[in-house]
Amino acid sequence: MPETAPPEDRAQETTASYTPTARTAPTRGRARASYDRELVHSILDEAYVCHLGFVRDGAPVVLPTLFARVGERLYVHGSTGSRPLRETGAADPGLPVCLTVTHVDGLVLARSAFHHSINYRSVVVHGTAVTVTDPEERRLALDAIVDQAVPGRSKDSRPADAKELAATAVVRLDLDELSAKVRTGGPNDEPEDLSLPYWAGVVPLARGYGAPVPADDLDPAVPAPDYLTARTV
Amino acid sequence: MPETAPPEDRAQETTASYTPTARTAPTRGRARASYDRELVHSILDEAYVCHLGFVRDGAPVVLPTLFARVGERLYVHGSTGSRPLRETGAADPGLPVCLTVTHVDGLVLARSAFHHSINYRSVVVHGTAVTVTDPEERRLALDAIVDQAVPGRSKDSRPADAKELAATAVVRLDLDELSAKVRTGGPNDEPEDLSLPYWAGVVPLARGYGAPVPADDLDPAVPAPDYLTARTV
Repeated sequence: MPETAPPEDRAQETTASYTPTARTAPTRGRARASYDRELVHSILDEAYVCHLGFVRDGAPVVLPTLFARVGERLYVHGSTGSRPLRETGAADPGLPVCLTVTHVDGLVLARSAFHHSINYRSVVVHGTAVTVTDPEERRLALDAIVDQAVPGRSKDSRPADAKELAATAVVRLDLDELSAKVRTGGPNDEPEDLSLPYWAGVVPLARGYGAPVPADDLDPAVPAPDYLTARTV
Repeated sequence: MPETAPPEDRAQETTASYTPTARTAPTRGRARASYDRELVHSILDEAYVCHLGFVRDGAPVVLPTLFARVGERLYVHGSTGSRPLRETGAADPGLPVCLTVTHVDGLVLARSAFHHSINYRSVVVHGTAVTVTDPEERRLALDAIVDQAVPGRSKDSRPADAKELAATAVVRLDLDELSAKVRTGGPNDEPEDLSLPYWAGVVPLARGYGAPVPADDLDPAVPAPDYLTARTV
């Protein structure tokens, strides 16, 4: 995704880390927190579904949604009729949101129930979502959302027409206030538990793609594209 | 999980559906929304990581966390020193939360960029998280959280001792105000796009478990338990 970043974003990328703030500084598990820009980007780029949180009538709402990263910006989209995006647009200069991405990499089984855990990588982004109105930025964002899930796909499909573009809300969230958290490795059992007769270790977990299933109405002469058949992660 | 539900919960399970409310009634995609209790349970039970949203200083926060379902209750746990759970405990009679579970089942590729989508199953639960203080309920909840990720594991590990229990906060959220959303099937292209030369269909997606990796300090005489070696989903 990063190659389509508008030039004005590039300057931000010169620092290797994001700066912690009061709400991104961890209160515990400090060793697992990171602000490393490259790590944050890699966690975001491996995902295409995020969980977007906002406040409605004083209460939190968390919805899964597709997203894309373009340089130092995240984009989500939706129907202009959908509730969260309507609210975003209505609340100029923007809606406070929290956008979270999580990869679960393994189940960590310790001898003690207490030390069971998961290996994971997550990024939590705080900020203000703003509606994108610039036509060129909207197009770039929508292509990026398609390509985030299936790299290369936006160029191998029919681009949105004017009516479709008008029906689509695009919202931007800058990568500014955020943190990553990562847990790796085996269980951290207490020394006195090591000789207990329970199996301990990690069950690795990964996204598994199946063979592409053509649509019922697909012309059999259209082959599955390379960017799908080559995909394993 | 449902078998360990306290008896007083059972009465709630006699209706086949949850009741929609203003905030769980969808504003669009109505056909995909469901309040079917069995469907909701199945989506929750297949997961063990949720995204928990709450409001801090007026802004949303969304964090990934382990959870379990026990009958009509969800439980999450954490260190008593962790910020969200501290806030929950401090905010008697509870903290408004939104707990969301999402499974991504496939990437849906349409001929048009606009109709790209994902197949997914999600549950969004709204409610008030309350701190669990009853020792027996706390024990049941902690076992359930271990078993939600690895069914059968809680009985094959060292139970938490008094010190570990004291360090663990357990929070409950009742299954009351919630909805499920499900998308299945192939792309919904416009009729005039069907003859375009782009591949269309679904790339199935599933959780893949790898072979269990023993801890470095595991006695080689301890075999991997059946509940791990048999696992594929």
